[in-house]
Amino acid sequence: MSKAPLIALLTDFGTFDPYAGILKAVISQIAPGIPIVDLTHEVPPGDVLRAAIYLWQSRRFFPVETVFVCVVDPGVGTTRRGLLLRSNSQTFIGPDNGIFSYVMNTEDQVWELTQQEYMLPNVSATFHGRDVFAPVAAYSALGVEANAFGPRIPQPNSLPNPILVAKADGRLSGEVLYSDRFGNILTSLGRFVEISTGQFSIEPWVNIQPGPANFPIYSPDLTYLWLPSGETLRWVHTFANLEGVECGCLVGSSGLLEIVANGNRVDQILKLLPHDPIILGTFGK
Amino acid sequence: MSKAPLIALLTDFGTFDPYAGILKAVISQIAPGIPIVDLTHEVPPGDVLRAAIYLWQSRRFFPVETVFVCVVDPGVGTTRRGLLLRSNSQTFIGPDNGIFSYVMNTEDQVWELTQQEYMLPNVSATFHGRDVFAPVAAYSALGVEANAFGPRIPQPNSLPNPILVAKADGRLSGEVLYSDRFGNILTSLGRFVEISTGQFSIEPWVNIQPGPANFPIYSPDLTYLWLPSGETLRWVHTFANLEGVECGCLVGSSGLLEIVANGNRVDQILKLLPHDPIILGTFGK
Amino acid sequence: MSKAPLIALLTDFGTFDPYAGILKAVISQIAPGIPIVDLTHEVPPGDVLRAAIYLWQSRRFFPVETVFVCVVDPGVGTTRRGLLLRSNSQTFIGPDNGIFSYVMNTEDQVWELTQQEYMLPNVSATFHGRDVFAPVAAYSALGVEANAFGPRIPQPNSLPNPILVAKADGRLSGEVLYSDRFGNILTSLGRFVEISTGQFSIEPWVNIQPGPANFPIYSPDLTYLWLPSGETLRWVHTFANLEGVECGCLVGSSGLLEIVANGNRVDQILKLLPHDPIILGTFGK
Repeated sequence: MSKAPLIALLTDFGTFDPYAGILKAVISQIAPGIPIVDLTHEVPPGDVLRAAIYLWQSRRFFPVETVFVCVVDPGVGTTRRGLLLRSNSQTFIGPDNGIFSYVMNTEDQVWELTQQEYMLPNVSATFHGRDVFAPVAAYSALGVEANAFGPRIPQPNSLPNPILVAKADGRLSGEVLYSDRFGNILTSLGRFVEISTGQFSIEPWVNIQPGPANFPIYSPDLTYLWLPSGETLRWVHTFANLEGVECGCLVGSSGLLEIVANGNRVDQILKLLPHDPIILGTFGK
Repeated sequence: MSKAPLIALLTDFGTFDPYAGILKAVISQIAPGIPIVDLTHEVPPGDVLRAAIYLWQSRRFFPVETVFVCVVDPGVGTTRRGLLLRSNSQTFIGPDNGIFSYVMNTEDQVWELTQQEYMLPNVSATFHGRDVFAPVAAYSALGVEANAFGPRIPQPNSLPNPILVAKADGRLSGEVLYSDRFGNILTSLGRFVEISTGQFSIEPWVNIQPGPANFPIYSPDLTYLWLPSGETLRWVHTFANLEGVECGCLVGSSGLLEIVANGNRVDQILKLLPHDPIILGTFGK
Repeated sequence: MSKAPLIALLTDFGTFDPYAGILKAVISQIAPGIPIVDLTHEVPPGDVLRAAIYLWQSRRFFPVETVFVCVVDPGVGTTRRGLLLRSNSQTFIGPDNGIFSYVMNTEDQVWELTQQEYMLPNVSATFHGRDVFAPVAAYSALGVEANAFGPRIPQPNSLPNPILVAKADGRLSGEVLYSDRFGNILTSLGRFVEISTGQFSIEPWVNIQPGPANFPIYSPDLTYLWLPSGETLRWVHTFANLEGVECGCLVGSSGLLEIVANGNRVDQILKLLPHDPIILGTFGK
């Protein structure tokens, strides 16, 4: 394996404490000069689902052979395993708590991290990011083979899939995920791909039943999003198609349908909560 | 053009979501190994004026041939243009919404970004930072000529200038801009340059009428700042010249007059708002 | 001296303003290509004690010859000195306000920064991070000898030590320091080292009286932490040994005793304040 082009960090450490900086220090000691990119350190504390979605959103924009250090780890210090995942020519390192659920494919290979020579001495009970995952990532980036870190394992733990169901009548059932920095609300509906102007197909972003063959083609002009309140939202092209406090939905930058407003925080206008059910369909159907 | 020494990022993405990390991923794919510097990602969402001032404050400390990626872009997905600006041997890339207003000179050259071969495939309607500006910046940093990205255009959009007026009686009229992390309040008055101990001249930081010839020399000992409440503040050398909740003004690190206290947040002591009028002058004048 | 492997930044600038980015710009101009690592920019404004503890926690994970730029500097612009400290083959640069108190040893050497050729022209009264400390750090990283920056001085200012007292009856008296991102509360008790399973000795992290010989061996099973309320907390191995809102203490990642809960913010359950007294001991003693 060639040397990695960069190491990406995804944690819930925040940036107030020196924890994220210490990760970089450990990496720099073992693999001097390798570029380190902060994906984010602001995953809500312990929110493994959020981290898993962020990884899914981001990994395809990173170079081949990127090493991801992923530390959202509420079970640190217990017997939960540490993992190294090889997936689509990238390497993911972190705890076995489902954080890799939405990047894994059936062909991917997984190892358990057991070999202490690739960890810091005296591994602490509370900071495996520093003592285990950062040093393993640095050695991996230097070209140490996955087999050196521990044994292959068949199947890591995984999270349940977000709701994404194609109904018999063509409607699509999903759920609210979370809101971002701008107040835009991401949903589980997608990943939408514009196959021709104003015509969208779905390539499901998580494994679902029934499979993709059941999804119709969606035309934004004819399609609306139903909220739990009974309110319906238009499907628009971009923020500027909305005015003032009008809320709508659009295909966001990751291909997921997002609920948005124009220059306003939709999460403060609509009182939606994570896991609230939503339905996409046409009037009359 | 030689390869850029670094790419600087200025956005309103925040660091909670993976958006800023994805910008770096895209850049790293196209221009591996180029240093990436975060100027800040915490511009208030959509606040183009703030971003424009940050650029003005910062760009002179960056190396020649730095490429700036500037994404405060509430009009994303509309027909607003994307720009590349060459200014004083640095390159600025971002939307045509006035964000470059305070770095542009009349000799600068501007291009519209139209050539899709330097963008990601399938440009989204909501994330041109990722799909347009980051890849163009990376190619520019690699040495691609500005002409390759699209046609020259005569004049980008620009913001109105902050208020900075020299009155006939020697007083200087300005406005409150915003407060920083420490609660210090930046004003439009400046850029002050200390020409000898305790003697300041002004080199206007934005184009103003009447021109610089009308500005007197200011001596802090004799000069006061009038607030809208009628209160006047002393002009001091540094924070330690004030005690407790006493408020004063001083020449901040960018040369703009700042309203400050010592170890206290002046923005919580004085109830000033952006655009509040302020006047600098001597008693009796 | 060889070129530094990286420059680490520790400030209270926050990341909302461009100040931290400007530090990096200045460094990049003088020492192009040197890796820059953010330790944190989120030290509470003016909190020199916090910065001093962060440095103590972090420095041992950084490479030999790392240069640390440390700017928590409420006295900027006064006659307080600027310093360069050589300590254990690392270099620390910042104001003489005690920020280096917990990294300094008696063998360390200190210089005052006086030579203006290693500063930016026209040093401001409010931003020595940009005008003095960043350029000195960059030149130091390039190999400029410490003697070139100014004269040796005997002793910098230092902060009082946090409370850490071994009582005659074997109990240990300390104080609350602060809470971190996760709500965990760090204390002055430590640095605990596990000498065999379930047996901890103390290597005092700050100079104390009486010396280490007076510290007993601590066994978590038999040892409790007394809070000012009279409540006692169990000493556990990791977060998962606690349930719900049960609070306990454990040896944190820096070796200091931390007060924690499992999946809850202990700082919102217990109403502890910085400097609150705490006592570690066994029942009956």
